[in-house]
Amino acid sequence: MSLKSSFGINLQRIRRGQGMSQEELAAKAGLARAYLSGAEAGRRNATLETVEALANVLGVDPIDLLKKHPSTQDNMP
Amino acid sequence: MSLKSSFGINLQRIRRGQGMSQEELAAKAGLARAYLSGAEAGRRNATLETVEALANVLGVDPIDLLKKHPSTQDNMP
Repeated sequence: MSLKSSFGINLQRIRRGQGMSQEELAAKAGLARAYLSGAEAGRRNATLETVEALANVLGVDPIDLLKKHPSTQDNMP
Repeated sequence: MSLKSSFGINLQRIRRGQGMSQEELAAKAGLARAYLSGAEAGRRNATLETVEALANVLGVDPIDLLKKHPSTQDNMP
């Protein structure tokens, strides 16, 4: 599974776990909602600073947004 | 310590540990040597695909290039 896929799955899982909307997270991280939606779908080639900004808003370690999560199947592109 | 700093420190440590030159790693990852030099200095806002390309050449998990390494002091910017 690619880093972008892991990032998207973790981002969505953690955001939803905190009951935060895409609009709220995007606004707090200084991103467009459409960008965030694409990132959660694994379609954005995010930069380290963007990953860090999102991690800061969510209050998690950036690695938590990037590591393969047990629930992520390895047959994802 | 920022993700960019951790990335740079890990990248240089692992590359040197494999006895690989910046020229060789940059060429294999399809990057300019100057870009790699800046990344190792913590000055590049790399994308997830760039991190993944470098990890593939080095044969490590991309997370190994991004996680805080015990040797990395936390007083780094």
